[in-house]
Amino acid sequence: MTDATTPLAADTTLADLPLREALRGEHAYGAPQLDVPVRLNTNENPYPPSDALVEELVDTVRRLAGELNRYPERDCIELREHLAAYISAQTGVSVTRDNLWAANGSNEVLQQLLQAFGGPGRTALGFVPSYSMHPILATGTHTEFLHCARGAGFSIDMDRALTEIERLRPDVVFVTTPNNPTGDVTSLDDIRRIAAAAPGIVIVDEAYAEFNDGPSAVELIEEFPARLVVSRTMSKAFDFAGGRLGYFVAAPAFIDAVMLVRLPYHLSTLSQATAIVALKHSGDTLATVARIAAERDRVVAALEEMGYDVTPSRSNFIFFGHFDDAAAVWRQFLDAGVLIRDVGVPHRLRATIGLDAENDAFIAAARDIAVTAGITPGTSTT
Amino acid sequence: MTDATTPLAADTTLADLPLREALRGEHAYGAPQLDVPVRLNTNENPYPPSDALVEELVDTVRRLAGELNRYPERDCIELREHLAAYISAQTGVSVTRDNLWAANGSNEVLQQLLQAFGGPGRTALGFVPSYSMHPILATGTHTEFLHCARGAGFSIDMDRALTEIERLRPDVVFVTTPNNPTGDVTSLDDIRRIAAAAPGIVIVDEAYAEFNDGPSAVELIEEFPARLVVSRTMSKAFDFAGGRLGYFVAAPAFIDAVMLVRLPYHLSTLSQATAIVALKHSGDTLATVARIAAERDRVVAALEEMGYDVTPSRSNFIFFGHFDDAAAVWRQFLDAGVLIRDVGVPHRLRATIGLDAENDAFIAAARDIAVTAGITPGTSTT
Repeated sequence: MTDATTPLAADTTLADLPLREALRGEHAYGAPQLDVPVRLNTNENPYPPSDALVEELVDTVRRLAGELNRYPERDCIELREHLAAYISAQTGVSVTRDNLWAANGSNEVLQQLLQAFGGPGRTALGFVPSYSMHPILATGTHTEFLHCARGAGFSIDMDRALTEIERLRPDVVFVTTPNNPTGDVTSLDDIRRIAAAAPGIVIVDEAYAEFNDGPSAVELIEEFPARLVVSRTMSKAFDFAGGRLGYFVAAPAFIDAVMLVRLPYHLSTLSQATAIVALKHSGDTLATVARIAAERDRVVAALEEMGYDVTPSRSNFIFFGHFDDAAAVWRQFLDAGVLIRDVGVPHRLRATIGLDAENDAFIAAARDIAVTAGITPGTSTT
Repeated sequence: MTDATTPLAADTTLADLPLREALRGEHAYGAPQLDVPVRLNTNENPYPPSDALVEELVDTVRRLAGELNRYPERDCIELREHLAAYISAQTGVSVTRDNLWAANGSNEVLQQLLQAFGGPGRTALGFVPSYSMHPILATGTHTEFLHCARGAGFSIDMDRALTEIERLRPDVVFVTTPNNPTGDVTSLDDIRRIAAAAPGIVIVDEAYAEFNDGPSAVELIEEFPARLVVSRTMSKAFDFAGGRLGYFVAAPAFIDAVMLVRLPYHLSTLSQATAIVALKHSGDTLATVARIAAERDRVVAALEEMGYDVTPSRSNFIFFGHFDDAAAVWRQFLDAGVLIRDVGVPHRLRATIGLDAENDAFIAAARDIAVTAGITPGTSTT
């Protein structure tokens, strides 16, 4: 009899399995989930949901729990109505539920779009560095991922972008704005030029849109109805990372398209219902955005005063350097009890804006680390 | 300005979009979700969760709601521990959390396995008719789906099965037991012969295992550690279709494999926590299984007495005929207020066993329909 503390068949290794060749030697994606006092590594909203939201959530679960033996409403109609109302109010562009699609996080939304519009023999172009899941999702759907390097200050170099779109003819173009991990914004004019040049679809990833007070690419959907998709998430400003709810806004035909590849009943009854509750309380939740933006400006000013080079950010994180060895500096922050993110871009690290006290801890660590990292006032290149 | 009742960009059609060629003309999968008095079409457990389960669920949500601004625990460790304890008790085979993997429904679990072990240039073999999502998931991951027809009484014809495995050398073999939509069971001896012959992995889909009092293929994992995966779901006996929780049991190396393709944070905080609550109350929930089995036997006896041909079922549904025009008979049941399932197998329909009164309604409808469908006592071929 097997001892219950020993896994069954533990001697079999991954090398023994008939895994796809392309996956051999790969590592699972994911930021370290470490038990550290100050966690500023995954760009969550640090403020917990309001008491009113929690109360309505509990009431909603009580109301629905007795029906959990039944499959969820498959097409998430009511949730999509609430998302449409939110997007109409937030962007000033009137949309309906037929313009909205939702799934378990924006990762699943993007995977569905790649299944429908990418795949074997097709390509996706990204402006790097950007959200590191885009190439992983492309690979996972057998879409070839093509890179176009960003230009000065990590902005999209429009001449290079248009040249590469013309040369590579990608089936999918990703534009992340505000960009992760750099925080910079791509203007609607530039998105318009990219959409006009793109032969396939353009996915504007607006995961951090609420932190930017500029216009949304949703304004461009009417101009490029067969091209433009705007993806969003409730994981960031919306305070709902644990609820896993991503969505996109586009012409209804895009919803028809992802319906062909979505797994039936992909969003649970509780995922749909709790997201609706979160949307009902968006006023309270999004009131934290201004506090986070003010804190971001305070942190940036402190770091720049110490001599760090900080990329101007319109999001809830900052991207800073310059470090000879970013991995070593990441470890120094960790040793100081502050978990930030090494996204793999040489010489730079990313830190999420947290609660005031967390930001104080981050600034204090940055002050200590500046000495050993050779950061001194006046060394900043900005 | 767009009227909020009219979708934005509604004139753009799917034909205008650069959809993958293979998806053109396809239709979205899914049983009709119709508002009908008696719904016996998706093989749910008809008994609602117990009051004790609901109370613990509400308490759990209240405890966790304040942390929903944070991402979930990514690897679902606690949930997998509870699943391991359940499987150890239910199958008598001691397993640990390292043998368990969970996702949003067994569809996502199977999709992840196909991403890791199927894909372009690879094939999956199924014994049809079987769960209709298997070929759809294969297509969605660009795995070529190969069919091997079942034999008499819809059982797997083992001679044909072994010949086809030898001839086709599939990378993935699906064995659904109890089989959906037919309800028949494949013996462990036959699964052993299939696993011994298969050059790739064998996925035993045990979605309906709790309705069958026979042994589980989990018993064979130690014998075929690099071959055998047993998938399960909490949507059926477990009363948790609305919670969307599927899982598999296998050697730990299989968990290493799907970690390479899973979307990070794929299971929400509430999905993990509510599934744990459901597992804690499995004793109460699974007590309904015996009632459903007794009702199944009652329904089968009634239909056979009327002259219907009913496939022997070890599940919570029955598969019956013979109809010249199954689609027309499906419509007759619907007109009588009873929604059952036309799974596309000629001459037969599938009906879920429901609450006693629902089964009465189904039997009454079947009695009326027998007349026009030409079913008379003694016409059954069984």
